[in-house]
Amino acid sequence: MRYAYLGPEGTFTEAAVAKLRGPAERGTRSASASGVETVPYPSIGAVMTAVRTGEAERGVVPVESSVEGIVTATVDDLASGNDLLIAAETQLEIEFALLARPGLSLTDIKTVGGHPQALPQCRRWLTANLPAHEWVPQASNAEAARQVAEGHLDAALAGAFAAAKYDLQVVVPDVHDRIGAVTRFLVVVPPGEIPGPTRADRTSLAAFLKEDHPGALLEILTEFAVRGVNLTTIQSRPTGEGLGNYFFFIDCEGHIDDTRVGEAMVGLRRVCAEVRFFGSYPRSDGGRTKVRAGTSNQEFAEALAWLGRLRFGRALSG
Amino acid sequence: MRYAYLGPEGTFTEAAVAKLRGPAERGTRSASASGVETVPYPSIGAVMTAVRTGEAERGVVPVESSVEGIVTATVDDLASGNDLLIAAETQLEIEFALLARPGLSLTDIKTVGGHPQALPQCRRWLTANLPAHEWVPQASNAEAARQVAEGHLDAALAGAFAAAKYDLQVVVPDVHDRIGAVTRFLVVVPPGEIPGPTRADRTSLAAFLKEDHPGALLEILTEFAVRGVNLTTIQSRPTGEGLGNYFFFIDCEGHIDDTRVGEAMVGLRRVCAEVRFFGSYPRSDGGRTKVRAGTSNQEFAEALAWLGRLRFGRALSG
Amino acid sequence: MRYAYLGPEGTFTEAAVAKLRGPAERGTRSASASGVETVPYPSIGAVMTAVRTGEAERGVVPVESSVEGIVTATVDDLASGNDLLIAAETQLEIEFALLARPGLSLTDIKTVGGHPQALPQCRRWLTANLPAHEWVPQASNAEAARQVAEGHLDAALAGAFAAAKYDLQVVVPDVHDRIGAVTRFLVVVPPGEIPGPTRADRTSLAAFLKEDHPGALLEILTEFAVRGVNLTTIQSRPTGEGLGNYFFFIDCEGHIDDTRVGEAMVGLRRVCAEVRFFGSYPRSDGGRTKVRAGTSNQEFAEALAWLGRLRFGRALSG
Amino acid sequence: MRYAYLGPEGTFTEAAVAKLRGPAERGTRSASASGVETVPYPSIGAVMTAVRTGEAERGVVPVESSVEGIVTATVDDLASGNDLLIAAETQLEIEFALLARPGLSLTDIKTVGGHPQALPQCRRWLTANLPAHEWVPQASNAEAARQVAEGHLDAALAGAFAAAKYDLQVVVPDVHDRIGAVTRFLVVVPPGEIPGPTRADRTSLAAFLKEDHPGALLEILTEFAVRGVNLTTIQSRPTGEGLGNYFFFIDCEGHIDDTRVGEAMVGLRRVCAEVRFFGSYPRSDGGRTKVRAGTSNQEFAEALAWLGRLRFGRALSG
Repeated sequence: MRYAYLGPEGTFTEAAVAKLRGPAERGTRSASASGVETVPYPSIGAVMTAVRTGEAERGVVPVESSVEGIVTATVDDLASGNDLLIAAETQLEIEFALLARPGLSLTDIKTVGGHPQALPQCRRWLTANLPAHEWVPQASNAEAARQVAEGHLDAALAGAFAAAKYDLQVVVPDVHDRIGAVTRFLVVVPPGEIPGPTRADRTSLAAFLKEDHPGALLEILTEFAVRGVNLTTIQSRPTGEGLGNYFFFIDCEGHIDDTRVGEAMVGLRRVCAEVRFFGSYPRSDGGRTKVRAGTSNQEFAEALAWLGRLRFGRALSG
Repeated sequence: MRYAYLGPEGTFTEAAVAKLRGPAERGTRSASASGVETVPYPSIGAVMTAVRTGEAERGVVPVESSVEGIVTATVDDLASGNDLLIAAETQLEIEFALLARPGLSLTDIKTVGGHPQALPQCRRWLTANLPAHEWVPQASNAEAARQVAEGHLDAALAGAFAAAKYDLQVVVPDVHDRIGAVTRFLVVVPPGEIPGPTRADRTSLAAFLKEDHPGALLEILTEFAVRGVNLTTIQSRPTGEGLGNYFFFIDCEGHIDDTRVGEAMVGLRRVCAEVRFFGSYPRSDGGRTKVRAGTSNQEFAEALAWLGRLRFGRALSG
Repeated sequence: MRYAYLGPEGTFTEAAVAKLRGPAERGTRSASASGVETVPYPSIGAVMTAVRTGEAERGVVPVESSVEGIVTATVDDLASGNDLLIAAETQLEIEFALLARPGLSLTDIKTVGGHPQALPQCRRWLTANLPAHEWVPQASNAEAARQVAEGHLDAALAGAFAAAKYDLQVVVPDVHDRIGAVTRFLVVVPPGEIPGPTRADRTSLAAFLKEDHPGALLEILTEFAVRGVNLTTIQSRPTGEGLGNYFFFIDCEGHIDDTRVGEAMVGLRRVCAEVRFFGSYPRSDGGRTKVRAGTSNQEFAEALAWLGRLRFGRALSG
Repeated sequence: MRYAYLGPEGTFTEAAVAKLRGPAERGTRSASASGVETVPYPSIGAVMTAVRTGEAERGVVPVESSVEGIVTATVDDLASGNDLLIAAETQLEIEFALLARPGLSLTDIKTVGGHPQALPQCRRWLTANLPAHEWVPQASNAEAARQVAEGHLDAALAGAFAAAKYDLQVVVPDVHDRIGAVTRFLVVVPPGEIPGPTRADRTSLAAFLKEDHPGALLEILTEFAVRGVNLTTIQSRPTGEGLGNYFFFIDCEGHIDDTRVGEAMVGLRRVCAEVRFFGSYPRSDGGRTKVRAGTSNQEFAEALAWLGRLRFGRALSG
């Protein structure tokens, strides 16, 4: 089993892979006796391509941050094809540390690097504690750590676990503007069997509008609402066809095998230009699916049986 | 074949029966060589009972007037059970004539009788032309004609065709406050085969609310609207359980075999305490079913097949 | 003060007038020392005309029955003009008694009369207890009692209070198919001051659709729902312009002076061909207005003030 | 008049400032005889701060790209306070050029720099034409050009207008994956007078939900839809309070002085925890406000006058 993940080594995504592999596997390193190998890739697109081409069986990428919102590269890549399935999710608390070469103190730090998404999470801390610093965006937090190790930067914002990997010291262990920041990660796999329903699933999809008409979003939301399906995320993304042309990335509660979710998806398919399904998989946030009266699988089954009796049963008794 | 209809002979309902039987049958009278017999009954309830008990194969009753609205006795009787099916409908233009015994002139008329529903359709005419008349309600227009024939009343408001039956003269042939009044009639039969779908059907049903909550009607309408099913009639009727407790009598466009109608009915069934289906049958008003983009049977079938492929197809190809 | 009411003497409407006048006035009879006179009129239309012409200051008519639903003559008359205001309502439990001439027993009764609305409330009782009776509809229950007194009918279904008036005996005191039947009555007055708001008001109006488009009713309901105004009655009535052309008679919770009710009425006015307002008046059923979070007068006032500050305040501070 | 803009010199935002200043002003340079000065700032936040502190009278920042969607830094900064007003917008077609030092040819290029948002717009071109390149993200496209001039990078993706500024040559003039990419820019000013309504305005605001309840977005959309106000952008953004806690950034058609827009904003204010208004200003995309029947200012005024007559007029005539 080979995991592709958004690298390099030392990113939060690598930490997410470790969490997903579970305690039993975690003692082992890459290409281990356990047969699990984890391979960093330089971009979200590269992780997706590795799964598409079969270089890796699974890919792990961030999809949503409580600070920055949707990770657009992930959502746009998923939406660009029908050929990847989300098999699982996990979430991590994000805690940045300020890393530097041993011996450097806070007052010596002039340049700080990190992933562009690290900046909005730490901006106020940096302004207060390093008012004169220059921010140098890097492709990843781990890359920033590597640049520090090589002497091109004074400090990096990264996970504390990256310090050991690059022989750096943790100058400040908890750098953040707001506590409790969380990022959600997805496991993507090639198309195949969908994990069976639990009572706490999430379903992800993209809905492309037929044309830009004012009530389109209201129409989409109504397809879910009328069947009692709650949305947990809805995010518009440009299709690239000009300002104001959007598709919607949607996470809803429940599983594609739930009748209410299936009927809502059929409704979307009928009113949208295209709907792309990304998967149904267990939620990692502890939430359970709320089922409104009249929308359980049993209530659907009972009502469908009633319709069948009306349509066909009378003929038999007539 | 025996038709029960709202009598006595000489009512508009009898004229509706003749129209329903068609020109081929109409030359014949009751119990004729054609094997068709038409039998008047004293009330709508009695017609319904005749069909329920098997005394008659078909019952013909009025259901809606362009002047008076829904005929509540018909709707309430249908809603009281699950054991009658609407097999067809027809509509008639309603034209009242003022009938009297031969020799009587307009100025001699003091008392005028008719069915209570005749009064609102002719009130202004009566006030203008017979300002001093006394209105005497009767069980039917034909009964009023019979009372005139027997000398208990001076004149009757009834169809002109009733004059011959009771040896009366037509004093004024077109009595009405508003031209173009129309009444719709239903043919009810015992439960059995539903007439197959045409492209111009109507479906009738009653929806009983689960409880009296403010948004219930909005919920019911949304179940139809989200599937593109147009309503042609919606009427609240008291359930008899106290002021403000209602069920809704609903006519919608389309046939129970249409997927969008079936799905809307399943939706109703899930959110209502009870739904009673009265039939799907061809419309007599010349209207055709309007099908909104995305709600045709083919679009439903395509979307359902897509859902099936998502649910099961990937597993095969995975 | 002169009250016109749906007569003759001995109807339930006369009982409603007595209830409306209150205990202080009730000891007196018509044209009494109290200066209150009550005058019966032969029809709902005649009561309305008496108020319109100034013959009476107030009119009392039934508007809704828990068994029969809306009283269409009242609703249609109100909707035909803009020139009457509902000033109050009351409700009465309806209990029929079977009245006959002294000495007659149940087994002697062949003909029974009453208002057409009495029949559906007592039909099962009559079928069970007087299986061979003939039903003779009358203009009112009291008129049926008069016909019994004059020997034209054997028995009448009317309020027990009508017995004394016509020197009849009560053969059976409580005739009904279902206990707890209730009728609501309105007090109509010429246009003038609207009773001030309490916390338990009802507002009545009629909405005429601009054209017959499928979603019109949904649109009307949404205008109320989005402002949190609950409907207590909604009833379609034919405009008389052909089958399928309706207006809606609506009772909602709250007072025209409530901002949410006013805004909903403005919304109706903008989307409908015409809206006719019939009045805001205290409810007689003990219900209080439910006010959803965000829709109280104070919340509206606060939000409107905020809008005003945005529109004009910035200019002052700029 | 001093403009702060997202710098450094040579960015598309500087080109937007030039377009906003118009042909009359454009001959002049910074701190010119025209009295207009344009000052680059290193980040969107720095531009906003310059306007807030009075260092600049106006700030110009990007807000939406047809390729990348909403510029989150701009939206989040606006939403963080109530103290900036959008006074105008403009839009630019975005065309990237590949810039290098004179004499360098395409085959010599190993490292390419640019703003992170340049990459998704040019990724396919880079893969096809420079398959072995290394992408080096920079704080801005102009900064990338400066790094090229200083010899730290081989090439930069930037506007062709940046070449002259840094003495570079245009190696390839039109680098893009998709033609017609457009970016929208905003002019922000301190709170003050709102530009008067034209017939082609846009209104921007942020709506913070009261609590995370499933139907909240549907509720918000309905407040606009019921008053016929079309949305041109709606984007959820995390509040930073944990996954799934969002506010909505909304652009709608029309002006805060339009009654339908004002009433919709009052509706939002009543159902949301907080609404922040960012301004009403003329649209730059050539679109005009679509006004649905029944929602024009005149129709609102007429309906409000009618309500006033009902509430107060009757009292006068009574």
